[in-house]
Amino acid sequence: MVLSLAEKEMVGHINAKKSENFSEWYTQVLIRSGFIDYSEVSGCIIFRPPAYAAWQLVVDATDREFKKDGIDDVYFPLLIPEKLLQKEQEHLKGFTPEVAWVTHTGNTKLDERLAVRPTSETIMYASYSKWIRSWRDLPLRYNQWNNVLRWEFKHPTPFIRSREFLWNEGHSAFASKEDAIAERDRIIKIYLRILKDYLALPGIVGKKTDSEKFAGAVESYSIEHIMPDGLALQGPDHHFDGQNFSKPFEIKFLDKDGAWDYAWQTTYAISTREFGVMVATHGDDKGLVIPPKLAYLQVVIVPIYRKDNKEAVNQYSSNVYGVLNMHFRTRLDDREGYSPGFKYNEWEMKGVPIRIEIGERDMSANMVTVIRRDTGEKQQVNVNDIHSKVANLLEEIHSNLYENAVRFLNDHVHVANTYDEFKKILKEKGGIITAPWCGSAGCEARMKEENGTKITNLPLEHEKVADKCIYCGKESGIAANFARSY
Amino acid sequence: MVLSLAEKEMVGHINAKKSENFSEWYTQVLIRSGFIDYSEVSGCIIFRPPAYAAWQLVVDATDREFKKDGIDDVYFPLLIPEKLLQKEQEHLKGFTPEVAWVTHTGNTKLDERLAVRPTSETIMYASYSKWIRSWRDLPLRYNQWNNVLRWEFKHPTPFIRSREFLWNEGHSAFASKEDAIAERDRIIKIYLRILKDYLALPGIVGKKTDSEKFAGAVESYSIEHIMPDGLALQGPDHHFDGQNFSKPFEIKFLDKDGAWDYAWQTTYAISTREFGVMVATHGDDKGLVIPPKLAYLQVVIVPIYRKDNKEAVNQYSSNVYGVLNMHFRTRLDDREGYSPGFKYNEWEMKGVPIRIEIGERDMSANMVTVIRRDTGEKQQVNVNDIHSKVANLLEEIHSNLYENAVRFLNDHVHVANTYDEFKKILKEKGGIITAPWCGSAGCEARMKEENGTKITNLPLEHEKVADKCIYCGKESGIAANFARSY
Repeated sequence: MVLSLAEKEMVGHINAKKSENFSEWYTQVLIRSGFIDYSEVSGCIIFRPPAYAAWQLVVDATDREFKKDGIDDVYFPLLIPEKLLQKEQEHLKGFTPEVAWVTHTGNTKLDERLAVRPTSETIMYASYSKWIRSWRDLPLRYNQWNNVLRWEFKHPTPFIRSREFLWNEGHSAFASKEDAIAERDRIIKIYLRILKDYLALPGIVGKKTDSEKFAGAVESYSIEHIMPDGLALQGPDHHFDGQNFSKPFEIKFLDKDGAWDYAWQTTYAISTREFGVMVATHGDDKGLVIPPKLAYLQVVIVPIYRKDNKEAVNQYSSNVYGVLNMHFRTRLDDREGYSPGFKYNEWEMKGVPIRIEIGERDMSANMVTVIRRDTGEKQQVNVNDIHSKVANLLEEIHSNLYENAVRFLNDHVHVANTYDEFKKILKEKGGIITAPWCGSAGCEARMKEENGTKITNLPLEHEKVADKCIYCGKESGIAANFARSY
Repeated sequence: MVLSLAEKEMVGHINAKKSENFSEWYTQVLIRSGFIDYSEVSGCIIFRPPAYAAWQLVVDATDREFKKDGIDDVYFPLLIPEKLLQKEQEHLKGFTPEVAWVTHTGNTKLDERLAVRPTSETIMYASYSKWIRSWRDLPLRYNQWNNVLRWEFKHPTPFIRSREFLWNEGHSAFASKEDAIAERDRIIKIYLRILKDYLALPGIVGKKTDSEKFAGAVESYSIEHIMPDGLALQGPDHHFDGQNFSKPFEIKFLDKDGAWDYAWQTTYAISTREFGVMVATHGDDKGLVIPPKLAYLQVVIVPIYRKDNKEAVNQYSSNVYGVLNMHFRTRLDDREGYSPGFKYNEWEMKGVPIRIEIGERDMSANMVTVIRRDTGEKQQVNVNDIHSKVANLLEEIHSNLYENAVRFLNDHVHVANTYDEFKKILKEKGGIITAPWCGSAGCEARMKEENGTKITNLPLEHEKVADKCIYCGKESGIAANFARSY
């Protein structure tokens, strides 16, 4: 048979090696597996069915957790008047260089430019100031699932640095500072659960330094990842904004004692950027490896037949499909004109967690052959056990991916107690380096200049480090995580 | 107690009558119930929790049906390069007057303007031409749930004419004209089911005339509504685009016989506009009436107590809440300092389908008092039957809303067999007028000029009409639905 061009492009053509040329491997895996595609707009990607299905599953799972915590979903307009963006100065400085501006509608020039939201603080808080008047209106905890644009001029990378991305943006207002800060733990725990249970990813939780925190925040906390190339990448975060926004936006309320106060605010986000980490972490030289809960297809069945047993093998395969499809996202790949080997390659590249091969020998023994995508391990399974076997295997695959990711992370976090040690580790191993830091922005900046490293965050949990800042030697009570990063 | 300003604005202040000043009533009900709010951007509304929750429920239900029909979800970029929009001339003419243009990012002027998507044909089909090469790649049936902007200059009305709205846009490509056309029935049936089962709304299905069809389509089919003011409003639609897009976008495939052909395409949509119809149709002078399946809260429980029995009533109410909240979206309104009457008004305005009042007398008889929002009917129910009673009542409320809406629709569709009759009905009754039409665009245009009516669609089902066009008297095989419309 003749393959169409589209099919040829799709299959068997990942030739970059993850260990040799990570960035080329990364884009090949994403594009050629059909997970995403480039679009006609530079820096904006197309989520093809497997990518969007995975995002829907992440959204559903996260949203359930948000709702349990008392958070409501809302939807605010895409466009933000320029005057609103200008209300909080740090926020303005942080975002305006990347804003896409709508200046005309139809043939009419607008009186005021409208920003395509890079984030929605300013338009949301204009409404919060109308809705919040009394302590009875608090806490007000709203979240949006939407698309945002940040027109970065650095080289775009799918998911990791995309000019448009999908995310949640949670925006809460509380009557007290304590309530606002208490939200952080709950949200960070939700994000960690979603990362672990769905994306099979760990991360390092900690506080951002003042120079790295969110534009407008008092304190930012983040979950940080390490990519296969040893660079750090910032994941989900939670910001305590204090009254930085509530003052310029006049989000005031009458407290129980009859006095006016400004609301205490927080914001938090998880984005499609996490798919960059997921794909990079779990994938291999054969292609994608998608954690089972997020896989568009969880099981694919490939019948192997000759002319004389085709009907029987297909019928048997179809029965197996019938059983599995009740419980798992399953496909029977009975396409004509493609060899079994061609099909194996294709589904491996697409990252389907379990492949089931069914041939004459399986059939006559009342068995099927089951192959794990993550380890390649092959086993024969009695057809009567197939449901429970697949269920267990999907769990095992998930655990295995997560454990590997944890191992990789642990292997790439090192402690340095002197600046020489720091430079040596950075050169030889990369990853994240935990080191004592005096807390001064000066040391942070000079180490960045000299090494290209930033402080990813100040980890909540870490190995004990020395007492003196590795840069200036001053007393240090803080352990900081340094890394080169995306 | 003292009400905060926000609370005062929320409650008890709908003073417009639906029957007297529909448009004022409509916006009061939407805004003051807290369903939506106006934003700082003219024509763009804020979906508050009850509105967004309802939309999520519609999306989930519709998406399940789409997936059963073999449709996959994808996500394409928000921005569309101007040159892509220009590829199909009818489409371009239809949409450019309403496009919001991004011309600058940060401080940089773009070389080419980018349209904020008014609809995504052009950016999607640029990719379809890469992905589709062989009959094996067809059908390709992708759908997006997203936000679009259409900067209309007519007076904006929440949901009904919003500059930003949320919708699905389905875009399919088929190997044959027949396959493409066969999709229509399935999609229209899905939309009718969603309207009936979730929004409790009927509609009139039919074909659009050439002058009213979608910009770029060969044939458009729509579901049309009648609003309480007698104006028609177009609901969900399905368009057969033939090869109008596949030719300029070069969506070509090699068919089974080895010949090249252009793909046959369709597109279809349901949008948040339907919430305008839902609110307008079911609401009354007390406020919103939300169909039970889409209600943010399905049941609210209001305890009625004195000082001396407060604890007992609250405990009893809390037990009832415990039972109901396992099955229904329920709230126990035990707020201090608000009278029961105040609470009744508030929840009625917000459209909660069932209110449960619990006082001393209910408690001592092991009963609760149940009140339907739609009819106001009140009944005592034994606390042991409360789960099944509420379940049945929610069903009944839904059916009642739907039946009322069907009755209203039927009462507002009239047949005219002469032009005099037509004008008389239009003047006295409004609504939709089914009349014989010769099929000429001239008669359609002149009737529009003379009466302000357009042809909403050519209904698939209708009462028999006369044989001659009511305008020109020529032979007519067609019944057309005429109406003044939004």
